[in-house]
Amino acid sequence: MATQLSESRQTGNQDYFIYDREPAVWRHWRVSIEGRIATLEMAVDAEGGLVDGYKLKLNSYDLGVDMELHDIVQRLRFEHPQVACVVLTSGAERIFCSGANIYMLGQSTHAWKVNFCKFTNETRNGFEDSSASGSLKFLAAVNGTCAGGGYEVALACDEILLVDDRSSAVSLPEVPLLAVLPGTGGLTRVVDKRKVRRDLADVFCTSEEGVRGRRAKQWNLVDDIATPGRWAEAVRARAEALASQSRRPQEGVGVELTPLERRIDANGIHYSTVDVRFDRARGFATISVSAPADMPPEGGDAMRQQGVDFWPLKMARELDDAILLLRTNEPELGLWVLETEGEGANVLAYDKAIAAAADHWFVNEVIGMLRRTLSRLDVSSRSIYAIVKPGSAFAGTLAELLFAADRGYMLELISDPQAGPNIALGEANFGLYPMANGLHRLESRFLGDIDRHAELQGLVNSPIPAGEAYDLGLVTFAPDDIDWDEEIRLAIDERAGLSPDALTGMEASLRFAGAETVWSKVFGRLSAWQNWIFIRPNAVGESGALKLFGTGKRAEFDAKRV
Amino acid sequence: MATQLSESRQTGNQDYFIYDREPAVWRHWRVSIEGRIATLEMAVDAEGGLVDGYKLKLNSYDLGVDMELHDIVQRLRFEHPQVACVVLTSGAERIFCSGANIYMLGQSTHAWKVNFCKFTNETRNGFEDSSASGSLKFLAAVNGTCAGGGYEVALACDEILLVDDRSSAVSLPEVPLLAVLPGTGGLTRVVDKRKVRRDLADVFCTSEEGVRGRRAKQWNLVDDIATPGRWAEAVRARAEALASQSRRPQEGVGVELTPLERRIDANGIHYSTVDVRFDRARGFATISVSAPADMPPEGGDAMRQQGVDFWPLKMARELDDAILLLRTNEPELGLWVLETEGEGANVLAYDKAIAAAADHWFVNEVIGMLRRTLSRLDVSSRSIYAIVKPGSAFAGTLAELLFAADRGYMLELISDPQAGPNIALGEANFGLYPMANGLHRLESRFLGDIDRHAELQGLVNSPIPAGEAYDLGLVTFAPDDIDWDEEIRLAIDERAGLSPDALTGMEASLRFAGAETVWSKVFGRLSAWQNWIFIRPNAVGESGALKLFGTGKRAEFDAKRV
Repeated sequence: MATQLSESRQTGNQDYFIYDREPAVWRHWRVSIEGRIATLEMAVDAEGGLVDGYKLKLNSYDLGVDMELHDIVQRLRFEHPQVACVVLTSGAERIFCSGANIYMLGQSTHAWKVNFCKFTNETRNGFEDSSASGSLKFLAAVNGTCAGGGYEVALACDEILLVDDRSSAVSLPEVPLLAVLPGTGGLTRVVDKRKVRRDLADVFCTSEEGVRGRRAKQWNLVDDIATPGRWAEAVRARAEALASQSRRPQEGVGVELTPLERRIDANGIHYSTVDVRFDRARGFATISVSAPADMPPEGGDAMRQQGVDFWPLKMARELDDAILLLRTNEPELGLWVLETEGEGANVLAYDKAIAAAADHWFVNEVIGMLRRTLSRLDVSSRSIYAIVKPGSAFAGTLAELLFAADRGYMLELISDPQAGPNIALGEANFGLYPMANGLHRLESRFLGDIDRHAELQGLVNSPIPAGEAYDLGLVTFAPDDIDWDEEIRLAIDERAGLSPDALTGMEASLRFAGAETVWSKVFGRLSAWQNWIFIRPNAVGESGALKLFGTGKRAEFDAKRV
Repeated sequence: MATQLSESRQTGNQDYFIYDREPAVWRHWRVSIEGRIATLEMAVDAEGGLVDGYKLKLNSYDLGVDMELHDIVQRLRFEHPQVACVVLTSGAERIFCSGANIYMLGQSTHAWKVNFCKFTNETRNGFEDSSASGSLKFLAAVNGTCAGGGYEVALACDEILLVDDRSSAVSLPEVPLLAVLPGTGGLTRVVDKRKVRRDLADVFCTSEEGVRGRRAKQWNLVDDIATPGRWAEAVRARAEALASQSRRPQEGVGVELTPLERRIDANGIHYSTVDVRFDRARGFATISVSAPADMPPEGGDAMRQQGVDFWPLKMARELDDAILLLRTNEPELGLWVLETEGEGANVLAYDKAIAAAADHWFVNEVIGMLRRTLSRLDVSSRSIYAIVKPGSAFAGTLAELLFAADRGYMLELISDPQAGPNIALGEANFGLYPMANGLHRLESRFLGDIDRHAELQGLVNSPIPAGEAYDLGLVTFAPDDIDWDEEIRLAIDERAGLSPDALTGMEASLRFAGAETVWSKVFGRLSAWQNWIFIRPNAVGESGALKLFGTGKRAEFDAKRV
């Protein structure tokens, strides 16, 4: 293990892989802020790989580099409210970014590759998510050769400016060079976001050298080109134009993203508003989220003053972290059981206060963080159950956990109906948190019953007991107290008996009915093809292209089409 | 090899797998026609498997059973114009269909499984294609247990009627039983076509026993239920209601689908309007399609009188067959080079005549056959180039071949511009042949340039030379006669050097930009997940569920989620 990883381990559990980064340990990106523009210069430390066995030459990246990028963008969102446009560029000579490090890919397990791609996809989607919400805008200032994953980062930006120096090209050489796909959004964004003509996309994606200069612009692979002499001026002009489209304030006081308070032990992962408990014997983890104990502050400024202690932000950061840690460290806990506790009424009060202050930059960022965290849940390759029992707080924003679950179980307390759990809908369930497919979770859920969707809007803020929740289709099952324990036990144990791979493919198909977007195509279609290719001998076999890259040996392909 | 396969071999090439079926050799389905309703009773001959090693018990099926089903539906479309509704039911006792034969899947290669799924998907999509075009309607009369692929056939029908006998259930038990997906449309159609609530779909797709009776109707897994006493009457009523929605005529003279005239030799596959030539050394096949030599007959009746000799039908049947034979028999010919020859003006004349007679049942069927054949091309896992040179006939319907290609090369004949090839657009390019994603090929192509799309409509029926075709974006490259040979040679040889798997994933992603439908989700998303799962040890390893099915041994899963 290289030093980078050791540095990042600040937990009691030596074996746990964690995602924490902070400015003091950034080593691959140089960040400078001037007025409303933040410039991120990629200057990857070749010796700073997350794992031994490869050097990050030519501004190539591994998960660690992307974790830093993610951290930087998060800090810009919250700590630097005046920043309205992020310029991604390179601090290396003549190379913007050469993409994911191939030796890293070559030595990684299938699971590591898939997890790496998913995290980088989420970081890139996060650019677009922020831009669409009026937050940060992104400019790729491609000042050198830009290949593979490097171009995929650029594709996630609002605009791409390419230096016209007769040598710098953009390219997606994965297919010809490595026998894998440009799988972190490349293929999808080329034809679906940039709408490059499909035959030109075919030529582009089968070429090692890529396309440069005027042709890159003609094909719409980039938005504009500029000569080295005009470069600085062109970048500034486009960055300012993008900044002017952002709703971020001209000035404001930021919120420092202090380190998460987290304790990892043999039993689970413990935060202040989120608690994860492992059941290794039965193969599941319980994720319990607490509602706020108090009423919300009034107005965006008061919320901002609470900073990382503002409940929705605290909860989102902790849940987001828990999802990432479970994904990476606990692959055998194939089922996540979501629980909530506390006062649902408090959640609804927070939702209302947030909605009223949504114009405030800080509140907009908090909503974005919640939206992306819930989206991370949707695309996690784990089965998800939600359990609603007395003391639960599945209301408003926290009710999204119920609707993100593959199944919801709600106890119908026949013995004491008054004490029985309720759930409650809030405005947040109808507007704030669209899924990757562009639909809200309730829209996706009631795709076949739009009347139901309208009916539910009339029930906002009313407590809904188990029987009614079942009749409305908000929960899957509502067992009574006699059957409850046995039914939950069975449901958990049956899931553990199913093939993890089949469940992953099934869940990816069932969770996203209806409309499609670039994001859902990336997660559902492109990732599935890449997963397949990632275990085919033509890529990863002894004579596969990914395996042999850099050895001087030529890959040998089984020519059969499947 | 079982007898079924030998019987079907009527070619000079003993090793060639062919798809021909005819009523005399049907052995798995009983067809009866009464008025406007054709009833297809599935009664699979357990001894009639296509390959040795398994018995088709419990009305399970293999590719051979599906080839028969495809043949039957094709004959109903053309030979029995008065048939307006197809009732799919079972001739077996208490079982409708138990799905794809598991022992067949267990012993099949990865490539065979993928090809089998693709063909069955196309047959099922063909039901929906016919229904949407006002042709045949489909009723699944589920008169017994209906599992897996059996339910997937039912899902492709317009309506599903389930017998309510306290035992017959519909189910998708693939995940719990076999550790693979319901991959021939099941997952997609449950949530996207029938819009079953996602949590109910989760319960349904993880249950071995499935759902029956009233609950099946409540969950929208079926449209209606009927007791055994009311069964015959209920089936008839629904079939008549569906028949009344068809635009097929009350009576009419059919067109017999006589056997294809086809010769297979070492050099290729030869038909009257389609000619396939192999280049095994360089790994590609040239598919050449001839324009009609004469002007079209006038009016639908005259076209119908020409029957299978009507050029558009003849061409579509031959091209369709060529695609199937190449897919199954020539996996190492990874590139298909499409050429055309003859008079483009004749093609345009046929297009015009077809459009004018589109209300005629026969013409509607011919258009459907063309649409499905072109769609088969789109989803073929082969690279496709179109080559436009002097003597070509890429006009109207045949120009769709150019737009279905991953790249188009058009010769710009500098030495003799008058002799240079032209292409031509016809109305057919703007309306008749949507792709699986619901968009026409030109719409998909110019997704980023709607003005271009409008501009092209103004060019209908005008010859377009190479330079103009290139400027309009209708071809990818327009090399002149000096560069032509070298450029084509290079383009072909470069493709042969790329990984077949990476190309398959890339092409599936680039060909279908823009909108999505159930069909494009089935081919692009569900198939990709299934392909991945089909090579994972949890399904096909020594202890995998698909491998061990029926041995009495329990599958052992690696519990790690990826």
